[in-house]
Amino acid sequence: MKNTFGNSISVTLFGESHSSETGAVLDGLAPGIKVSEELIAEKLSLRRPWGIISTGRVEADHFRIVSGVFNGYTTGTPVCILIPNENVQSRDYTQTRQLARPGHADYTAYCKYHGFEDYRGGGHFSGRLTAPLVAAGAIALSALSGRGILVGTHMARCAGIPDRSFADSEKDLEKDLKKLSGSRFAVLDEEAAVQMRAAIEQAAGEGDSVGGILETAVTGLPAGVGEPWFDSIESLLAHALFSIPAIKGVEFGDGFAMSDFRGSQANDSFALQGGEVITKTNHNGGINGGISNGMPVLFRCAVKPTPSIYKEQDTIDFIDHTEKKILIRGRHDPSIVHRVRVVVDCVTALVLCDLLAQRFGTDYLGEKQEQRISER
Amino acid sequence: MKNTFGNSISVTLFGESHSSETGAVLDGLAPGIKVSEELIAEKLSLRRPWGIISTGRVEADHFRIVSGVFNGYTTGTPVCILIPNENVQSRDYTQTRQLARPGHADYTAYCKYHGFEDYRGGGHFSGRLTAPLVAAGAIALSALSGRGILVGTHMARCAGIPDRSFADSEKDLEKDLKKLSGSRFAVLDEEAAVQMRAAIEQAAGEGDSVGGILETAVTGLPAGVGEPWFDSIESLLAHALFSIPAIKGVEFGDGFAMSDFRGSQANDSFALQGGEVITKTNHNGGINGGISNGMPVLFRCAVKPTPSIYKEQDTIDFIDHTEKKILIRGRHDPSIVHRVRVVVDCVTALVLCDLLAQRFGTDYLGEKQEQRISER
Amino acid sequence: MKNTFGNSISVTLFGESHSSETGAVLDGLAPGIKVSEELIAEKLSLRRPWGIISTGRVEADHFRIVSGVFNGYTTGTPVCILIPNENVQSRDYTQTRQLARPGHADYTAYCKYHGFEDYRGGGHFSGRLTAPLVAAGAIALSALSGRGILVGTHMARCAGIPDRSFADSEKDLEKDLKKLSGSRFAVLDEEAAVQMRAAIEQAAGEGDSVGGILETAVTGLPAGVGEPWFDSIESLLAHALFSIPAIKGVEFGDGFAMSDFRGSQANDSFALQGGEVITKTNHNGGINGGISNGMPVLFRCAVKPTPSIYKEQDTIDFIDHTEKKILIRGRHDPSIVHRVRVVVDCVTALVLCDLLAQRFGTDYLGEKQEQRISER
Amino acid sequence: MKNTFGNSISVTLFGESHSSETGAVLDGLAPGIKVSEELIAEKLSLRRPWGIISTGRVEADHFRIVSGVFNGYTTGTPVCILIPNENVQSRDYTQTRQLARPGHADYTAYCKYHGFEDYRGGGHFSGRLTAPLVAAGAIALSALSGRGILVGTHMARCAGIPDRSFADSEKDLEKDLKKLSGSRFAVLDEEAAVQMRAAIEQAAGEGDSVGGILETAVTGLPAGVGEPWFDSIESLLAHALFSIPAIKGVEFGDGFAMSDFRGSQANDSFALQGGEVITKTNHNGGINGGISNGMPVLFRCAVKPTPSIYKEQDTIDFIDHTEKKILIRGRHDPSIVHRVRVVVDCVTALVLCDLLAQRFGTDYLGEKQEQRISER
Repeated sequence: MKNTFGNSISVTLFGESHSSETGAVLDGLAPGIKVSEELIAEKLSLRRPWGIISTGRVEADHFRIVSGVFNGYTTGTPVCILIPNENVQSRDYTQTRQLARPGHADYTAYCKYHGFEDYRGGGHFSGRLTAPLVAAGAIALSALSGRGILVGTHMARCAGIPDRSFADSEKDLEKDLKKLSGSRFAVLDEEAAVQMRAAIEQAAGEGDSVGGILETAVTGLPAGVGEPWFDSIESLLAHALFSIPAIKGVEFGDGFAMSDFRGSQANDSFALQGGEVITKTNHNGGINGGISNGMPVLFRCAVKPTPSIYKEQDTIDFIDHTEKKILIRGRHDPSIVHRVRVVVDCVTALVLCDLLAQRFGTDYLGEKQEQRISER
Repeated sequence: MKNTFGNSISVTLFGESHSSETGAVLDGLAPGIKVSEELIAEKLSLRRPWGIISTGRVEADHFRIVSGVFNGYTTGTPVCILIPNENVQSRDYTQTRQLARPGHADYTAYCKYHGFEDYRGGGHFSGRLTAPLVAAGAIALSALSGRGILVGTHMARCAGIPDRSFADSEKDLEKDLKKLSGSRFAVLDEEAAVQMRAAIEQAAGEGDSVGGILETAVTGLPAGVGEPWFDSIESLLAHALFSIPAIKGVEFGDGFAMSDFRGSQANDSFALQGGEVITKTNHNGGINGGISNGMPVLFRCAVKPTPSIYKEQDTIDFIDHTEKKILIRGRHDPSIVHRVRVVVDCVTALVLCDLLAQRFGTDYLGEKQEQRISER
Repeated sequence: MKNTFGNSISVTLFGESHSSETGAVLDGLAPGIKVSEELIAEKLSLRRPWGIISTGRVEADHFRIVSGVFNGYTTGTPVCILIPNENVQSRDYTQTRQLARPGHADYTAYCKYHGFEDYRGGGHFSGRLTAPLVAAGAIALSALSGRGILVGTHMARCAGIPDRSFADSEKDLEKDLKKLSGSRFAVLDEEAAVQMRAAIEQAAGEGDSVGGILETAVTGLPAGVGEPWFDSIESLLAHALFSIPAIKGVEFGDGFAMSDFRGSQANDSFALQGGEVITKTNHNGGINGGISNGMPVLFRCAVKPTPSIYKEQDTIDFIDHTEKKILIRGRHDPSIVHRVRVVVDCVTALVLCDLLAQRFGTDYLGEKQEQRISER
Repeated sequence: MKNTFGNSISVTLFGESHSSETGAVLDGLAPGIKVSEELIAEKLSLRRPWGIISTGRVEADHFRIVSGVFNGYTTGTPVCILIPNENVQSRDYTQTRQLARPGHADYTAYCKYHGFEDYRGGGHFSGRLTAPLVAAGAIALSALSGRGILVGTHMARCAGIPDRSFADSEKDLEKDLKKLSGSRFAVLDEEAAVQMRAAIEQAAGEGDSVGGILETAVTGLPAGVGEPWFDSIESLLAHALFSIPAIKGVEFGDGFAMSDFRGSQANDSFALQGGEVITKTNHNGGINGGISNGMPVLFRCAVKPTPSIYKEQDTIDFIDHTEKKILIRGRHDPSIVHRVRVVVDCVTALVLCDLLAQRFGTDYLGEKQEQRISER
C-alpha cells in the first residue's frame, strides 16, 4: 500500500506537479458528515502561497468533489476530490532534467523509477500533492469538530525565532486553537510573527531559505483511543506526519527534552478535577502506552528549510554520470513552514478519524439519523 | 491491524508480562535465510537487564523457534518464536491494580479494555514484549548483513551526558557499527560511557531514573528504496520506532537542528567518488523524498526516563475514582536506554527487510538456490 | 480498506452512477509499462452496452488518465483514470427512492448509510463503476502480456445454453484466448452464440432477464506464484471476482463437479513434456496448495440474471415501512453476462499483477531500463 | 500479508505438520468475550479424525492459550493459541521428498521455496494448521452467539449422496443449526448420513477417497453489514473459505444454479413480517450488493476428494527431473468433508466478527462493562 494510508478510514493520493489534476480518495468516512465547500476552500487558502514569503506559483485550487458527497453530506462511500494544476509553466526541462537538485528527490526518483518518472516540477514528489491532502483533511477536521475534538498547529519556531508554546496556553488552549484556525501565518505571539517574517524576507533576499518547528495540539480526544504496540497514536501520527515533504523530526509531549529528565520529572501525576481524570503536567503529550489519556495530545514537527534556493550548488548529472554545477531557476518558497502548518492539521485529523472509526464504529463521526430525518 | 506490522514482511506480537510466554510471528521472509540461534541469543542478551543499572527481574530468555525454520534455514513460511516468562513473581496485585502508575499505561488500558486487561506487571504493555521483537529482528539483521547492509545504534546521550556522534565517524562508520554490535552498553566514547554509568547509578541511588538519546546508522542500503508519500522510509521507520515503549521522539539526519538551518546549509550536494554517487554532507540522513540515496541512513530516538521510580507519587484510583498516593515496589530499571538500543536495531532491520522484499521480491534476502544445492 | 484492494499493486475505486465521473487509482505498478490508450478504449468498448441485448444507456467512456503515465509509459507512481458519466438522465427519483428494488442494493444501502446514500441510478452500487475497473485492468492485462501471460474469458453458458469448454481447447488454448480477446460476445462455438442471443432477446421481449457462467483461462503464469493460506491464488481471485456485481459463485478447475469425484479422478498426475513439468489433466485448475503449478489457471464464475426487469414486483417502502408494488422503469440490460466478461478478465489481471509484483519485485512488470534508454 | 487475514479482527497462522506446535494469533477481539476452553475443545474434537473414515493420525489437540485471556475473558490484546503436534511419526522422507504427490503442494512448494520448505507431512500446507484456525474460530463463534448470531454447516452432499438443504429448513433453521452444532458427522437427514458413511467406507476399501459439498447458514446477522465493492460479504467470506485446503468452489444463495434463472425467478421480493423486513425467497443468500439484508446468509463450498490415496500414481521427481511412479504410504483420510465442516464454521465466524467490529466498533462483541462489574 504505497499511496494509501489508514485502516478504517483511508486516504489515497495521486498526481504530479504538472498533471492535469492532483487528487485524493477518502474512503471509510461515516455517512452523514456535513461537507462544507467553504471550509475546504478556507483550509486550501491556508496552504496557498502568498506575499513575498512564498513562491510565485499561486494556484487557485479550484477543487471539485467528484464522488461520495450528496446533498451536502458524505454518503459513506469514497469521496474523491480533484484539484487542477492550472498555473503550470510549460518550459524546457531538457537541460536540467538529469541534474539532481540537492535536497530534492530527483536522484532518488531516478534510482527507483529508472528514468520513467515525470520529472517536471518535481513530479509526484511535488508539494502540490499536499493540496488534495488538505482538502481531504478539511472534511476530517470538520467531522472531529462535530465530536468536540479540535486540532490546531502554530509555528513554534521559524528561522530560529521562537513563538510561545502551547504549554503556556494553560486553560486557554481551545481559545488559542480557535484563534489559530483561520490564520495564514499561525503564530501565538504577534511580536514573534513580525520577527519571523522579517527573517524569512531576509533569507529570501539572500536567495536562501529557512525552516522551523510546528507545534500541534488536539483537545477533546476521549481517553482510550490508540493501540498498545504498532498502532500506537504516536506510531500512526508519525507515519502520516513523516509523509509530508520536509518533515525531518517528530516528537510527542516534551519529546527530545525528556531524554534529559529524571523519571520524577517526566511522569505526569494523575488527579481529579471536577470529577474528571486529569494529569497535573502533560510531559507525555496526552498519550500513555500509545493510548490517549484524555489530556491534550501535543507534538512537534521539525520542518527543514526549503531545498529550492537561488544559489549555485554542486551536483551530478545522474544520467551522464558527471559532476556539474546547478543554479535552480523558477519559482520557489523561502519558507514553507507557515504553509505546512495546515497540512499537519489535516493529516492529524485523518489519523484521528481513522482511530475513532476503528474504536467506535463506522457511524461514529456522522450525524445521527434522527437529526437528519428531522431536517428533511 | 493492531499487533501486526509490515507489508511484504510482517511481524505479529503477542503476550503479557505474566503470560506463560511472549512471542512473535515473522511472516514473508525469503526461504533460505540462515538462522543462527547463537545470534538470536546474543541479541537477546543485549536487551537483558544486568548489573546495578537494571531491574532485578532477569529472564534467561530461553527462546524457542516453533515454526518456519528447517535445517537451519528459513523455509519461507511464518517463523514463530516463543520466549517463556520464567522469572515471574506471583504476588498480590489487588491493592495496587486500580492505582494508575504515572507514566504507565494502567489508566489508559483501563479506559480501553474496561477492566478486562491483564494488569499484572504491566500486562500486554510490558517491555517484556520487546524480547520476541528482538528475536525476530535478529533474523532480519542477519538477512540484511547477508546483503552487506549493517545496522547499529549507540547511546548518543544518557542522563544528559553526550557520546560522540556517528557524524564524526567519517569513513570508519562500518567499523564503529561492528564494534558496537556486541556491546552491552553501546557508547562510542569510553569516557562518556563511564560517566553515563555513574549518572545512572546516582539516579538509582536516589530512587529515580534517567533517559537518553539513541543514534542509529544503516550502511549499505542501496539507493532507490522507499516510497514517495505514505511509505517513505521515514514514515515506516518512525511507525515502528514509536511502537517501542518510552520512545517519544524520532528525527532523521540533523532532524530538529535543521529547523534552524538555512537551505544552503541543509542541502546535501551530490558528487562522484570512485564512480559512485555520494553526497558531500549527510544532513538529510541518507533519504531524499522518502527514498534512500545510497548514503548511510541516520536517525535518532528520544528515550524518556523509565516511569517506574521508587518515590511516592500522586495518582488516582481509577475504579473508585479517588485521589491517592502511590509508592511503586517491585523491580525496575533506573535506565533502559542501553537495553532499548538493540530493540531499535531490530525494528529497523524488520522495516528495511520489508522495504527490500517489496522492492526486489520475496526471494531477495534468501540464499541463492545454487549455493544451497551445492551444500547438500 | 473498503474500496481499495491489493497488496503490492492496489486499486481504489470511487464514483456513483450519477456522479460527474467514476474513477480508479492504480498504485504500485512498475515504472515502464507501456500504456496504450487504444487498448483501454478497446477493453471499455467490450464492456459497453450495445444492440437490443443491452441497456439503452450507452456511455462513450471518454476516459482520461490524470496521473502516473508520462510519455506513454507508467511512471511507477499512482495512475488515476477518470471516466465521465455523460449519458445521465436527470429524472425525478422522489417517487421511487424509498422503494427497494428486489435483487438490488437499495434496501441494504439504506440500512448501512441511513438515507445519506446517493440513490440515483443505484449510486455507488451501479455497474458503472466497473468501467474504471476495466480501464485499470486493461493496463494490467497489457503488463501481463508483456511477460507472456494471457488472460481470457468466454461465456461458458448463457440463458441455459452451453458453449464448449476451455477444457476442450487442448493445445489451442492460447489461440482461443487471442480470438476471444476482441469479441463483444465472447463464445467459442458460433452456433451456441446464435442461440444465446436469441434466448436473451426472447427474455428481453418478455420483460425479463437471463444469467450465465463465465469461464476464464490464464496461460503463461509461472509456477510458484501464490501463498499457502490466506493469500492463495484462489483466495485472492475469489475476493476480487466476488466484488463484481452479480457474481454469485466462483469455482476453480472442475470446482463443484469435483465434489462427486473420487481422489483417483481428481488428482492431476505430473509428467514431463519437452523437459517441462506438466500435469496430464488439469482438474485443479493450475493451482496446488494455493500456488500456481505452471498449467493454465482455470475458473468459472456464476453470473445471476440482471435484477432490473420490466415486471411488477412485490417490495417495501423502507422509509414508510409499508408493503408496495414496484414497476421499474428506465433503461436496463436483459443480460450482462457478455459485458461482465471483460470485467472478469480485468480483475483477474489486477490480482495476478499484484501476486507477481509481490513475488518478483516492483520492477518485474516494467520494461527493462536498457530497452528504454535505446528508445530515447 | 500472507498468513494474516482480517482488518479490525485478524488471524495469523503458523506451523507445520511436524513442527512442535501449530498456532494462531487472534488480534483485535473486544475485551470481555467469555472464553470457554470446553467450547474450544469441543470444536477441535469435531475436526479430529475418528473411526474408519479418517486418518489414523489422531491428535489429542491439547491446545494452550498463551496470551490475551485473563480470568476467563478476552483482554482485548492478542490471543495466541498453541496446539502441539504430538502424534508425529518420525520416518524417513529421503526416498519420497522429491516426488510430487498428485493433488498436493509438494511441487508448487518446491517452485516457491526452492527446496528450503519443510517437506515432512506436507509441512506448512498440512491440514494440521486448520486446528489452530478452529481454536481461534471457536472464540469467534462464541462471541457471535453472545450477539444472537448462529453459524452452522452440514454436508449437503458427500460421495455423490445428497442431504436435504437448509432451504427446506424454513422456520426451523435455527433449530437445525443448534442440532448440527455438536455433531461429528453433520447431516440433516439421518438416512443420507448412513449412505454417506457407507460410500466413504467403500472408497476407503478401494484405497480411494471422496469429496462433497458443505452448506452453511448464518442467522441473526443484522442488515447493513458488509461493503459495496472489494469488502463485500461474499468477497471476504470467499477469501477466507478458499484458504481452507481442498475447497475448490464457493457459491452464495442459489449460486451457480442462478445462472440458469430468469431475473423474475432470481429476485427476492421484499415484504414485512411482524414489522420486520424480510424477503419472501432467499435466492441471493441474504446478501444484496455485498451487504447483509437481515435474512439468513447461505453459501456452499465444494470440497474436493482427499488427494492422498492408496493407489499408484504417475508423477515426477522434481529435483532429478525424471518421471516416476508414486505409492503414498502413511495415514490418510478417505474423506475430510465431515472434518472440514467445522473449519468452515470457524473461518465464517472470524470474517463476520471482523465485519461487525469494523461496523460497530471494537467493543461490540464484548460483554458490557456493567455486567462485568456486577460479576466481580
